Amino acid sequence: MTEIAAIDRFTCVIPAGGVGSRLWPLSRAAAPKFLLDLTGGGDSLLRATWNRLMPIAPPERIMVVTGNAHRESVVEQLPGLLPENLVTESEPKDSSAAIGLAAAILEQRDPEAILGSFAADHVIRGNVLFQRAVKTAVQAADQGYIATIGIHPTHPATGFGYIKCGTGRTDLAPFDVYDVEKFVEKPDEATAGAYLQQGGHLWNAGMFIARASVLLDQMALAEPGLVAALREIASVWGTKKAAVARERLWSGLPKIAVDYSVAEPAAASGKMVCVAAHFDWDDVGDFASIADLLTRGRKGDLAVLGDGAQVLSDASSGIVVSESDRLVALVGMTDVVVVDTADVLLVTSKAHAQDVKALVNRMKVSGGGHLL
Amino acid sequence: MTEIAAIDRFTCVIPAGGVGSRLWPLSRAAAPKFLLDLTGGGDSLLRATWNRLMPIAPPERIMVVTGNAHRESVVEQLPGLLPENLVTESEPKDSSAAIGLAAAILEQRDPEAILGSFAADHVIRGNVLFQRAVKTAVQAADQGYIATIGIHPTHPATGFGYIKCGTGRTDLAPFDVYDVEKFVEKPDEATAGAYLQQGGHLWNAGMFIARASVLLDQMALAEPGLVAALREIASVWGTKKAAVARERLWSGLPKIAVDYSVAEPAAASGKMVCVAAHFDWDDVGDFASIADLLTRGRKGDLAVLGDGAQVLSDASSGIVVSESDRLVALVGMTDVVVVDTADVLLVTSKAHAQDVKALVNRMKVSGGGHLL
Repeated sequence: MTEIAAIDRFTCVIPAGGVGSRLWPLSRAAAPKFLLDLTGGGDSLLRATWNRLMPIAPPERIMVVTGNAHRESVVEQLPGLLPENLVTESEPKDSSAAIGLAAAILEQRDPEAILGSFAADHVIRGNVLFQRAVKTAVQAADQGYIATIGIHPTHPATGFGYIKCGTGRTDLAPFDVYDVEKFVEKPDEATAGAYLQQGGHLWNAGMFIARASVLLDQMALAEPGLVAALREIASVWGTKKAAVARERLWSGLPKIAVDYSVAEPAAASGKMVCVAAHFDWDDVGDFASIADLLTRGRKGDLAVLGDGAQVLSDASSGIVVSESDRLVALVGMTDVVVVDTADVLLVTSKAHAQDVKALVNRMKVSGGGHLL
Repeated sequence: MTEIAAIDRFTCVIPAGGVGSRLWPLSRAAAPKFLLDLTGGGDSLLRATWNRLMPIAPPERIMVVTGNAHRESVVEQLPGLLPENLVTESEPKDSSAAIGLAAAILEQRDPEAILGSFAADHVIRGNVLFQRAVKTAVQAADQGYIATIGIHPTHPATGFGYIKCGTGRTDLAPFDVYDVEKFVEKPDEATAGAYLQQGGHLWNAGMFIARASVLLDQMALAEPGLVAALREIASVWGTKKAAVARERLWSGLPKIAVDYSVAEPAAASGKMVCVAAHFDWDDVGDFASIADLLTRGRKGDLAVLGDGAQVLSDASSGIVVSESDRLVALVGMTDVVVVDTADVLLVTSKAHAQDVKALVNRMKVSGGGHLL
């Protein structure tokens, strides 16, 4: 029996990693996606994430996990972040290690701690609906479940994974909570259309809410060595031994996404529940997503992102992202993507926006790495 | 009976005017098309025109007519140009005034003078064939005809006017000289295809070769006031009175293309002949033309124009024109046109290359004129 209410034992964890190479050349190694303002609202995605979580948890219960290289940028973006809640990785080890370390540190601080993991680089509109979903998820987590938040699809998206919902769990909440039957990989368009038609399939927004100990114990079933190492680091976290422990153990950790180490096995064993939510959510994975976000999906519209951007266009559609005050003139272009930075100009189409990643990968091996 | 051979009375006139607004933002008011290097060969089109004419006429018989604003640029490009052969206009008055003034000055210097007018901003490959055609045209001109040089079409071009050839004129030359039956405006694609199929239609390259007096007398039938004014200016040309005379008369001159004041009426009255030629010719009227020129028409190729241009492309095709040393990355673009200058970036397609002019016209009235 816990004496402190679940929501008061709840810490928001923001894993802030990932360059977002599909958003190159706007995103760079030194300017990863979570540090960018992709909505034109004036805040980086990280800052917007912080602002969104503030009504749910006070600053002392918001934690950020990021790479050493981004420590200063993160502190600059989030002046309210407490030093003890900034967890840095010496090298990127994917989400199991990042979220797992946060969980282990929180478990160390309070064995009854509940945590929720929320990406630093997604866009959400409808904060009240988001907050309500999180609070419902926290209640389910307090009962020992691993909860996720699924988004009701508004179109047959092929760029997101889906959650197939099972039985409604009215024992956990009167509405909107379901067993997770399984997680489904990004579907083709026909399958995505069928999901939309038949219902019961939600977008997987990659949010996980659980007791820290439950999350770690679940992860330990798949990755016992990883969890043992994370708990060892956490046991000395905040002391002078922390750096040494992390130094010794971190580089040997396996790189595995929390989806595979936790979410899928938990779903298979009936420990995963889903809160179905209606807020607008996008992982803004490529420039086509940003264009749709800025034009709110209106066909034929041209989206413009950039402070000094001057755009002269006829009936052209797509998106112009400008980091200069040059005039960008478009003539007769449909669904074009133009990204104008100081040292790189990218021109592609919304249909090929995903292929930017392939170009970036090519540059890594063929030279031009200084521009990444 | 002339004692001096026709070719030794022949002066090449290069009207160097026209911004080339379809090539904006590469072309600007201060950097008109004829001052640009559009082939990547290192020479401006004007300089290349000069080089092409040198084997036909010595420097003392090559004349340039240009706007006052471009005097210095022209002199810089053509150090061999004699001061008395640089004719400047106080304001642009279209080709009848420009070529007519040159003709009047040459007529003043030598009543038997023959002139040929060759645009400063076209691209020609096959100089020997060009020289031979010009020499044939000079012979016909000496006989009192107005000669033009028509290019055998290699594809059903819709961007050029055509010359419909009549009877072969073996009295003037053993081969390749025909009466001009009429000039035909830019055709649609079906018509252009039919021209190519049936033969007898040549591209109108806008070259006119005639005795100066014949050209002026023909022009005087349509535009007597214009020709009278030009002859009045020419009568004092080279004296201290020239500037005053030009100042007084020039602004009142009608703006009319030499095609309408001379070529079409001359054709209608049987005074126009055509030399059919096989050299490669292009008026490089838009970026699609430049792309075709640089890739020699190979489909799927990407053309690159610019000294410092760095281009990273997958299977994209079209043209990149770069005035910077920025990396230009293209992903999945077909027949794209990217023009990257210091203050303007243009993105369009080969299919819309002609529409750049409409954009420029819009800018003239709606602001942004400082970028033109």
